[in-house]
Amino acid sequence: MSVIYDRVALIGLGLIAGSMAHAMREGGLAREIVGFARSAETRDIAREIGLCDRIEDSAEAAVAGADLVVLAVPVGAMGDVAAAISPHLKTGATITDVGSVKQSVIDAVGPHIPQGVHFIPGHPLAGTEHSGPRSGFATLFRNRWWLLTPLPDSDPEAVARLSGLVRAMGAKTDTMEAGHHDLVLAVTSHAPHLIAYTMVGVADHLRRVTDEEVIQYSAAGFRDFTRIAASDPTMWRDVFLHNRDATLDILGRFTEELFMLQRAIRMEDGQQLFDYFTRTRAIRRGIIEAGQDTEAPDFGRVAMTPKP
Amino acid sequence: MSVIYDRVALIGLGLIAGSMAHAMREGGLAREIVGFARSAETRDIAREIGLCDRIEDSAEAAVAGADLVVLAVPVGAMGDVAAAISPHLKTGATITDVGSVKQSVIDAVGPHIPQGVHFIPGHPLAGTEHSGPRSGFATLFRNRWWLLTPLPDSDPEAVARLSGLVRAMGAKTDTMEAGHHDLVLAVTSHAPHLIAYTMVGVADHLRRVTDEEVIQYSAAGFRDFTRIAASDPTMWRDVFLHNRDATLDILGRFTEELFMLQRAIRMEDGQQLFDYFTRTRAIRRGIIEAGQDTEAPDFGRVAMTPKP
Repeated sequence: MSVIYDRVALIGLGLIAGSMAHAMREGGLAREIVGFARSAETRDIAREIGLCDRIEDSAEAAVAGADLVVLAVPVGAMGDVAAAISPHLKTGATITDVGSVKQSVIDAVGPHIPQGVHFIPGHPLAGTEHSGPRSGFATLFRNRWWLLTPLPDSDPEAVARLSGLVRAMGAKTDTMEAGHHDLVLAVTSHAPHLIAYTMVGVADHLRRVTDEEVIQYSAAGFRDFTRIAASDPTMWRDVFLHNRDATLDILGRFTEELFMLQRAIRMEDGQQLFDYFTRTRAIRRGIIEAGQDTEAPDFGRVAMTPKP
Repeated sequence: MSVIYDRVALIGLGLIAGSMAHAMREGGLAREIVGFARSAETRDIAREIGLCDRIEDSAEAAVAGADLVVLAVPVGAMGDVAAAISPHLKTGATITDVGSVKQSVIDAVGPHIPQGVHFIPGHPLAGTEHSGPRSGFATLFRNRWWLLTPLPDSDPEAVARLSGLVRAMGAKTDTMEAGHHDLVLAVTSHAPHLIAYTMVGVADHLRRVTDEEVIQYSAAGFRDFTRIAASDPTMWRDVFLHNRDATLDILGRFTEELFMLQRAIRMEDGQQLFDYFTRTRAIRRGIIEAGQDTEAPDFGRVAMTPKP
C-alpha cells in the first residue's frame, strides 16, 4: 500500500475510469474509490462487479470530499459535468480529465474550477476498441504515455502528485502545451481514426462486393481498420467536433498526399510508389525501437479458433 | 506423410514461399521441395537455413521435373519468370502463383503455358509485415483463405489436387472469377494498404510535429497503420500498378466518403458522425463472428518490454 490520494472520484465509468479503478486497487493507490456514471444501467453493472468501493447516484455526491476527481466522460460532456460538480469540490482537491482533446476541455472546464482547486488536464494514450464498465483492466496503462497539459498557473506539487499516481499505474508521463497536444494527437490518433472509419464505411456501402465477402476476406489488411473503427462512437464524435481545426488540417494534407499517390498509380510511376513505401517502412522500425509496438509479426495476433 | 505432389518448385523465396516450405515439410505434403530466388543473397540464406531440400541457381533448373511450380515473385515479375521456365515445365505439371492480383497475372503468365500444363492462379490471404527468406513460418496459412481463380478450361482434377495441398497447409479455399477477386481485394486489401502508406507518409512530412513525437505517441491509433505500411515495397508497388482500375475506383469512393465526413466535422454535424461510427462498429462484430480476427482487445497485442 502506498496511498497517493485518500479518496478518488471517477466521473464516467467506461474503459479508462474502469481501468483506473482496477489499477489503483492493484497498487493500493487510493484509500477509497467512488464512482458515478450518468446511465443507471452502467451504475448497476459497476455495483454488480464491484468496480468501485461506492457508486453514487449523482456526480455531486461522488465528488464530495474527494481528493482527486477524474472526469472520464466524452469530451463534449466535460463542461456540463464540471458546472454541476463545481460547488461540491473540496478545497485543495485536484481535478483532472482523460479526454483525447485538451484545449477545448480547458475552455469548457476551466471557468467552473473554484479558487483553491487544482485543475490539471490529462490524456492517457491507452485504450482498446472495447468500451463500457466491464471493459477495463489493471494493465491498460502499462508502458503507455499519459500526457498532462498543466496550465501556466498549475501548482507544481499538485502536478507532481498526479504524475506520481499515473506512474504508479504503470504509465509514462510527460507534460506539453494543450494546443501542441491537440496537433500531435490529430496526427497520431484523430486523423487515423477518421480514415479507418471512412474505409470501413466505403466497404459497407459497396453493393457489388457483398458484405459477406468483405468480412470473409478481411484478413488481407482491412480487418486492422475495423478494429479502430469499432471504437466508441460518442467518444469519437466528440473528439472530431472538439479538435476540428487540427483534424481538418491533417486530413487536408492526407488528401493531397493520397491524390499524389493515386496519380502515380494512374501514370504508372512505379519508382515513386516504391520510394514512398520504402520511406514509410522506416517509420515502423522507429516505433518498434521506441518500445511503442511489438516486433512480433501481425502484432503477435492471438490465434483464432476456426469457426464453421 | 501424405504426399500430394512428388516435387514442388518454389520460384521466389519470400514470406509466402518460405511459409509454404515450412508447412509442406511439417505435413509431409511433398517428397522434395526445390527452390530458386533471383538474388544470390536470398539463395545463400535459404541454403544456410535449409529452407528447401535443394536450391537451384536458375528458375529453369528448379522447375525441371516438378509436379507443382509455385510462382511466388512480385506480380510485375510473373510474366518474365513464366517465359523463362515455360520450355522446362513437365507435361502434366500444375503451375500456380500467389500474387495479390489475378487478372494481370493471367494475362502475363497465361500465354506462356504449354499444352498439357495446368495453370491455376491462386492467392493466399495471409501475410505479415515481414518479408524475406527468414520470415516464413509453418502456421501462416492456418484458418486463412486461399483463393483460387481457375480458368474456364482448368482441369477439375488438377484444381482439386491444388485445393487439397492448400487445405493440408491449414488454409480454407474458395474459387472465384479473377476480375471479381481483384475488386474484392481492392476493397479488403489494396485500398487499405495505400491509405495506410499515405497516412504514415503524412506523419513523416509534418515538420511541426517532430518525428520523435509521432513515434512516441503512436500507440493512439497510428501504429496500426505503420504495421501495414511496413509491408514489402516491391510487392505493393506491383499490386497497385497491376490492379490499377479497381484500386483507383475504390480510392475514388473513399475520397468522396472522407469529404462527406470532413464536411460533417466542419459543419459540426455530430449526429451524422455518430450514426456513421455506429454502423462501422457492426462490421467489426461481423469479422469476429466470421472467425477472421481475434476478439481480444487490441488484437491481444503481445506485451512489450519497456525500453529506456
